Amino acid sequence: MRGNCIFCKIIEEELPSYKIFEDDFLLSILDIKPWSRGHVVIILKNHKENIFELSEAEAEKIFPMARKIAIAVKKATDCDGINVIQNNGETAGQTINHFHIHIIPRFEGDKVQIEAAAEGIEDFEAVKDKIIQNL
Amino acid sequence: MRGNCIFCKIIEEELPSYKIFEDDFLLSILDIKPWSRGHVVIILKNHKENIFELSEAEAEKIFPMARKIAIAVKKATDCDGINVIQNNGETAGQTINHFHIHIIPRFEGDKVQIEAAAEGIEDFEAVKDKIIQNL
Repeated sequence: MRGNCIFCKIIEEELPSYKIFEDDFLLSILDIKPWSRGHVVIILKNHKENIFELSEAEAEKIFPMARKIAIAVKKATDCDGINVIQNNGETAGQTINHFHIHIIPRFEGDKVQIEAAAEGIEDFEAVKDKIIQNL
Repeated sequence: MRGNCIFCKIIEEELPSYKIFEDDFLLSILDIKPWSRGHVVIILKNHKENIFELSEAEAEKIFPMARKIAIAVKKATDCDGINVIQNNGETAGQTINHFHIHIIPRFEGDKVQIEAAAEGIEDFEAVKDKIIQNL
């Protein structure tokens, strides 16, 4: 636990939350600034800042829980779609520096924007080789 | 394999791709309509449409690979952050109906938009209970 981390305090029940489900690794709660009705945040109980700090064992737990919660959210909200989003770094929109993943139900005509103009990249081979060299 | 699925054709090498990495379950390639330099798509080799159709065993494989690729993309691009995004349904921005997850490097001042006005939801308890009933 980090003393000044909001998610650590929620996990330790020093702060309240709308708890959906928890197991030994993960806590799922309602996002209190929801992008849509039924927006859930799944929080790693262990304080890791982002995806780069996850252990292999922790990483394995993430998507089975995302799937479980997404299925329940879809049934509960009758949404048209779901975005699963996990942000790393302030530039990527991460506001709390404790690993978490968003389950965001989507509805026709909602105000969620997830988009970009495609970048005009031409040197795909060079980009590919650079990533492979860093695997 | 689904005959008219672009990702199935890429997996079967009937269509070309910029391949980064593959194992028995997943294929990682460059997105050919990248939101930023180094945008990778991780594709489930088995044709499942979305998160709702994943098996538990398939779900376990997703985030360890996302982590592996994210670490390499960060090193390769020296990006400021990374979004991990997985879309389900046309309303959520899914354009190819074969499960995949995006690893999107972010750079200060880029043109990626991932945002929403928070919904003014007041009945958190009711939303929470409805989701729990559907777990």
